[in-house]
Amino acid sequence: MNRPSFLSDYMEGAHPALLEALTAANLEKAPGYGEDPYCCEARDLIRRACAAPDAAVHFLVGGTQTNAAVIHALLRSWQGVVSARTGHIAVHEAGAVELNGHKVLTLPHFDGKIAPQDLREYLCAFRADGNREHMVEPGMVYISHPTEYGALYSRAELAALHVVCREFSLPLYLDGARLAYALASPENDVTLADLAALCDAFYIGGTKCGALLGEALVIPDPALLPRFFTVMKQHGAVLAKGRVLGLQFAALFRDGLYERIGAPAIAAADRIRPALKEKGYRLIHVNPTNQIFVVLESGPMAALAEKVDFSFFEAYDRDRAVIRFCTSWATSPAEIDALIAAL
Amino acid sequence: MNRPSFLSDYMEGAHPALLEALTAANLEKAPGYGEDPYCCEARDLIRRACAAPDAAVHFLVGGTQTNAAVIHALLRSWQGVVSARTGHIAVHEAGAVELNGHKVLTLPHFDGKIAPQDLREYLCAFRADGNREHMVEPGMVYISHPTEYGALYSRAELAALHVVCREFSLPLYLDGARLAYALASPENDVTLADLAALCDAFYIGGTKCGALLGEALVIPDPALLPRFFTVMKQHGAVLAKGRVLGLQFAALFRDGLYERIGAPAIAAADRIRPALKEKGYRLIHVNPTNQIFVVLESGPMAALAEKVDFSFFEAYDRDRAVIRFCTSWATSPAEIDALIAAL
Amino acid sequence: MNRPSFLSDYMEGAHPALLEALTAANLEKAPGYGEDPYCCEARDLIRRACAAPDAAVHFLVGGTQTNAAVIHALLRSWQGVVSARTGHIAVHEAGAVELNGHKVLTLPHFDGKIAPQDLREYLCAFRADGNREHMVEPGMVYISHPTEYGALYSRAELAALHVVCREFSLPLYLDGARLAYALASPENDVTLADLAALCDAFYIGGTKCGALLGEALVIPDPALLPRFFTVMKQHGAVLAKGRVLGLQFAALFRDGLYERIGAPAIAAADRIRPALKEKGYRLIHVNPTNQIFVVLESGPMAALAEKVDFSFFEAYDRDRAVIRFCTSWATSPAEIDALIAAL
Amino acid sequence: MNRPSFLSDYMEGAHPALLEALTAANLEKAPGYGEDPYCCEARDLIRRACAAPDAAVHFLVGGTQTNAAVIHALLRSWQGVVSARTGHIAVHEAGAVELNGHKVLTLPHFDGKIAPQDLREYLCAFRADGNREHMVEPGMVYISHPTEYGALYSRAELAALHVVCREFSLPLYLDGARLAYALASPENDVTLADLAALCDAFYIGGTKCGALLGEALVIPDPALLPRFFTVMKQHGAVLAKGRVLGLQFAALFRDGLYERIGAPAIAAADRIRPALKEKGYRLIHVNPTNQIFVVLESGPMAALAEKVDFSFFEAYDRDRAVIRFCTSWATSPAEIDALIAAL
Repeated sequence: MNRPSFLSDYMEGAHPALLEALTAANLEKAPGYGEDPYCCEARDLIRRACAAPDAAVHFLVGGTQTNAAVIHALLRSWQGVVSARTGHIAVHEAGAVELNGHKVLTLPHFDGKIAPQDLREYLCAFRADGNREHMVEPGMVYISHPTEYGALYSRAELAALHVVCREFSLPLYLDGARLAYALASPENDVTLADLAALCDAFYIGGTKCGALLGEALVIPDPALLPRFFTVMKQHGAVLAKGRVLGLQFAALFRDGLYERIGAPAIAAADRIRPALKEKGYRLIHVNPTNQIFVVLESGPMAALAEKVDFSFFEAYDRDRAVIRFCTSWATSPAEIDALIAAL
Repeated sequence: MNRPSFLSDYMEGAHPALLEALTAANLEKAPGYGEDPYCCEARDLIRRACAAPDAAVHFLVGGTQTNAAVIHALLRSWQGVVSARTGHIAVHEAGAVELNGHKVLTLPHFDGKIAPQDLREYLCAFRADGNREHMVEPGMVYISHPTEYGALYSRAELAALHVVCREFSLPLYLDGARLAYALASPENDVTLADLAALCDAFYIGGTKCGALLGEALVIPDPALLPRFFTVMKQHGAVLAKGRVLGLQFAALFRDGLYERIGAPAIAAADRIRPALKEKGYRLIHVNPTNQIFVVLESGPMAALAEKVDFSFFEAYDRDRAVIRFCTSWATSPAEIDALIAAL
Repeated sequence: MNRPSFLSDYMEGAHPALLEALTAANLEKAPGYGEDPYCCEARDLIRRACAAPDAAVHFLVGGTQTNAAVIHALLRSWQGVVSARTGHIAVHEAGAVELNGHKVLTLPHFDGKIAPQDLREYLCAFRADGNREHMVEPGMVYISHPTEYGALYSRAELAALHVVCREFSLPLYLDGARLAYALASPENDVTLADLAALCDAFYIGGTKCGALLGEALVIPDPALLPRFFTVMKQHGAVLAKGRVLGLQFAALFRDGLYERIGAPAIAAADRIRPALKEKGYRLIHVNPTNQIFVVLESGPMAALAEKVDFSFFEAYDRDRAVIRFCTSWATSPAEIDALIAAL
Repeated sequence: MNRPSFLSDYMEGAHPALLEALTAANLEKAPGYGEDPYCCEARDLIRRACAAPDAAVHFLVGGTQTNAAVIHALLRSWQGVVSARTGHIAVHEAGAVELNGHKVLTLPHFDGKIAPQDLREYLCAFRADGNREHMVEPGMVYISHPTEYGALYSRAELAALHVVCREFSLPLYLDGARLAYALASPENDVTLADLAALCDAFYIGGTKCGALLGEALVIPDPALLPRFFTVMKQHGAVLAKGRVLGLQFAALFRDGLYERIGAPAIAAADRIRPALKEKGYRLIHVNPTNQIFVVLESGPMAALAEKVDFSFFEAYDRDRAVIRFCTSWATSPAEIDALIAAL
C-alpha cells in the first residue's frame, strides 16, 4: 500500500468506463470541434438527464475556462458578476474574469453559499445608490454547488435565489465542478432537472468527477448565449478533437454513471469524519460532500504530513491552519483504512 | 472500407502508444496542475530533444489558447504582434489575441511565410513614422512552421528572421501546430535544436500530431516569460489533470516517436499529389508537408464530395474554390487507394 | 507675420464665441458629469439641428475615446468592427479598439471611403464561409465623414451603406471628427438630419472644429446604447465639469455656428489648391474639404519646410512623401498669402 | 444670494487666473498632443515644485482615466492593484481597472487609508500562500491623498508604505485628485517633494482644484513607464489641444498658486464644522480637508435639503445616511454664512 493521499479529487486518470470508451473509438474517424457523433450523443443524454429537451450543451476543457467564457458571454461591458467572497472566480482563477474586462462583485458567504436575502439586499441597495451609474452594475450571479467548502444549497435555497434573480432580471449561473459529489450525497435534494429549471446556465463537472478532463455546460434556453461556439474559440476552449469530451460524457450519462460515480467519495468521507473526531481532531466547515476540513496547529500538521497527503487549505489564525482531506470516486477502502491508521 | 476522409489531421484519437501510456498509468495517483512525474519526465525529454537544457516547458491544451497566452504574456499593453496576413492568429482564432487587448499587425505573405526583408522594411518604416506614438508598436513576431499553406521555412530563412528580430529586440515566436509534419518532410532542414536556437518561444504541436490534445510550449530562456503558470491559469490553460498531457508528450519523446510520427502523412501526400495531377486537377500552394490544395469549380467539387471527404479551404474566385486534402499520422494505404480511385 | 503654419486644424484654442461662453458662466455653480443646464441646452439644440427629437446626446472629450467607447458598447464579445483599411481606428488610435477586446476588420478603401458593394460582398462572403464560427463576426460598421483623406460620402452613398447595414442588421457608426468641414463644403449633400436618419450613431466633432475639446455623440434611437453613461465612465470619458463641453456645444449650435464655422477653411483650401497646381506641385487625394495632399521628393520637401509648416502624411514611394496642408476655421487670409508666397 | 451649494468641488469653472491664461493664448498657434510650449513650461514648473528634475510629467484629462492608464501601464497581465476597500478605483470608476484586464485587490481601510502593517501582512500572506500561483499577484499599490473620506497620510505613514513597497518591489501610486486641499491643510506635513521622493507615480489633481479639467501625472523615474504617450493614446487620454492642459497647469505652478488655491476651502470647512456641532449635527469621518460628513436621519435630511445643496454619501444604517458638504477653492464667505444660517 502506498502512502494514503487525499490531496484532491483529480489525482487519478479517468473512470475505467471512460477510458474504455476513448480506447474503443480511438481509430474511428470523426469530425472535429464538437461536431462528432459522440458529442451529439452526449448532448442528447445530458438533455434527457436534465429534462431540458431544448438546452444547448457545450463541452469545454476546464472549470476556470468555462467560468470565464460563460461570464464573458453573458455580461455586457458595463456589468460585473456577483459571487460569494470565497467563490472560485473571486479568488483562485488568477483574475480570469477581470482579464476579460469584468469585475467580480463579492458578497458575504455562509460556507461558501450566498444567502438569498443578502443578494436581494445588495441588489436593492445598488438600485437605490445615487452613484450607481459610476459603479459596476451587477449583471449575473455566480454560485457553486457544492461550494468551495463542500456545502450544498437546498432546493428551497436555490429556488429563492432563482426568484431574486428573476426579480432583478439577472441570469443565475451555477459552477458544478464537483456536482457528482452533490448528486451522490444523501443530503442533496437538488436534481439535474432542478438545476435546469432554476439556473440559466450551469456546468456539470467532469474533471473532478471521473473524466480525464472536460466540463459540460448546459444552457436551458439557448437564446441566452448566442454565438457561444465563437466565444469558446476566442477563449481557447474549443478542443479540435472534441470527441475526447463527447466520448467521456456519453460514458458518464449513458447509464446514469454520473449520478452514481460520487458515491464512493461520500462513503469514504462518511468513514473519515467520525474517525477524525474520535481521535480528537477539530472539524470545521462540516459538509455532506467529499471535502473534510480540519483545524490543526503546525506541529501536529507536520507530523501528520509525514504519513498522509492532504492539502493546506487556508490560514485559520496565526498559529493554526485549515487542512483539507479530499476523497474521490477512486478512493478505495484500503486508502481509508491507511488514513485512519495514520491519524 | 469506409468512405475516404481527408478533412483534417485531427480526425482520429491518439497514436496507440499514447493511449497505452494513458491507460497504464490511469489509476496511479499524481499531483495536479503539471507537477506530476509524467510532466517532469516529458519536460526533460523535450529539453533534450531541443538541446535546450535550461528551457522552460509548459503543456497547454490547444493551439489558439497557447498562442493567446504566449502573446499576452510577451506583449506590453502598447504592443501588438506581427503576423502574416494569413496567420492563424490573424484569421481563424476568433479574435483571441484582440480579446486580451492586442492588435495583430499583418504583413504580406508567401505561402503563409513572412519574408525577412518584408519584416525588416516594416520595422524600419515603423521606426521612421512620425506618427508611430499614435500607433500600435510591434512587440513580437509570430510565424508558423509549417504555415497555413503547408509551406516550410528553410533554416536560412528562419535564421534571417532571427537576425531581424534581434536587431529590433523583438521576440520571435513559432507556432508548431503541425510541427511533426515539418520534421518528417525530406525538404525540411530545421531541427528542434534549430528552433530552440533561433526562436524565443515555440510550441510543439500535439493535437494534430498524434495526441488526444495538448501542445508543448518551449521557452529556451525561461526569464523571458516570468509567472507563466499564472498567465496560463488566467487563460484557462492549466489542466487539473496535467498528467494527461505529460503522459502523452513523454510517449512522443521517449524514443523519438515525434520525429517519426508524421512520416505516413508525408508519404501519403507524396502519393496523392501526382495522382491528382495525372487526373488533371490543378494543384495550388504546393508544399512538402501534409496538406494538398486543389482549385475546383463547383460542379466537379460537388461530384467529388459525394465520394470523398475533403474541406473547403477558401474561395479562389467567383466560380472556383480552393479545397484541401489533409493527410495525417493515421492515414492508411487503403485510404489513399480509395481516394485515388475516387478521383 | 509669423511663419505660415498648416500643420493641423487643432493648432489654436477655441472659436471666440465658445471662449466667451466659458468665461461668462465661469463662476456660476452647476452640477457635474453632464447634468448641468448648459449640457441640457446643448443636447436640445443638437437634437433640433439633427431633426432627431428622441436622440440621446452625450458629450465626450476626444475622438479616440469616443470611438473606443461607442464600439465597445455596441459590440458583443465575439464581434469586431468593420472599417476601411485607412480608418482612424485601424491605424492611428494606438490599438484602443483592441485594448477593449475587439478586432478591426478592414476593407479596401477609396479615398478613405468604403464602397457599399465591397461591404456587401464582404458580409456575404463571411456569411458563406464554412469557418465563420472560428472568425470574428462583423458586428458594426465604422466610417468617417470627411475621411482621413478629406473625401466625402454623397447622400446616395451613405444611403446605400445604410441599406447594406440594415440588410445585415449591423449598426452604422460615423466618425465626424471634421464634420464641420464637410458641412461647409459646397460639394457636401449630407445634412445633420441625414446623418441622424442614416446612421445608428455618429459624433459631431468639436476639437477640430472650433472647440477647445469635445465631441458630441448622437444616438438617434437611445435604446441602442443602454447604460452609456457607465460605459463612458469606464472609459474615462466623463468630464466632472461637463459644463466645459455643454457650454461650447451650446455656443456652436445656438445660432447655427457649427454649420458656418468650417467655411473659412474651405475657402482657404480653395485658394491654396490652384496656387499649388500653378507652381507645379502634384496634388493627390484631391477632396472638397480642408486637407490638401501633395507628393514631394525629399529635397523640395526640406526646402519648403524651411518656410512653411505642414505635416508628413505618409510615404508615397521610396523617394517621395505625401505631405499635408491643413486649413482650419481660424486660417486667415494673411496666412494663405504667406503660404502661397512661400511656394 | 443663491441657495448655498456644497455638492462638490467641481461646480464652478476655472480659477480666474487659468481662464485668463487660456484666453490670452487663445489664437496663438501651437502644436498638438502636449508638444506645445505651454505644456513644456508647465512640466518644468512641476518638476521644480516637486524637486524632481528628471521626472516625466504627463497631462491627462480626468482622474478615472489617469488611474486606468497608469495602472494598465504598470501592471503585467498576471498582476492586480492593491487598494483600500473604499478606494475610488475599487468602487466609483465603473470597473475601469477591470476593463483593462486587472483585478483590484482590496484591503481594510482607516478613513480611506491603508495601514502599512496591513499591507505588509497581506503581502507576506500572499507570498506564503501555497495557492498563490492560482491567484492574482499584487503588482502595485494605490492610495489617495486626501482619501475618499478627506483623511491625510502623515509623512511618516507615507514613508512606512514606501518602505513596505520597496521591500516587495511594488510601485506605490498616489491619486491626488484633491491634492491642493491636502497641501492647504495645516495638518498636512507631506510636500510635493515628499511625494516625488516616496511615490513611484502620483498625480496632481487639476479638475477638483481650480482647473476646467486636467490632471498632471508625475513619474519621478521616467524609466518606470516607457511608451506612456502611446498608453495614453490607447486610453483616449491624449488631448489634441494639449495646450488646454499646459496653459492651466503653468498658471497653477508659475507662482505657487496650486499650493495656495485650497486655502479658502480649508478655511470654509473650519468654519462649518463647529457650526454643525453647535447645532447638534453628528459629524463622522472628521478630517482636516474640504469634505465634511454628517450622519442624518431621513426626516431632517429632507428638511435640510430644501434649503441647502449637499450630497448623499452612503447609507449609514437602515434609517440614517451619511451626507457630505464639500467646500472648494471658490467657496465664498457669503455661502458659508448662508449655509450656517440654514442649519
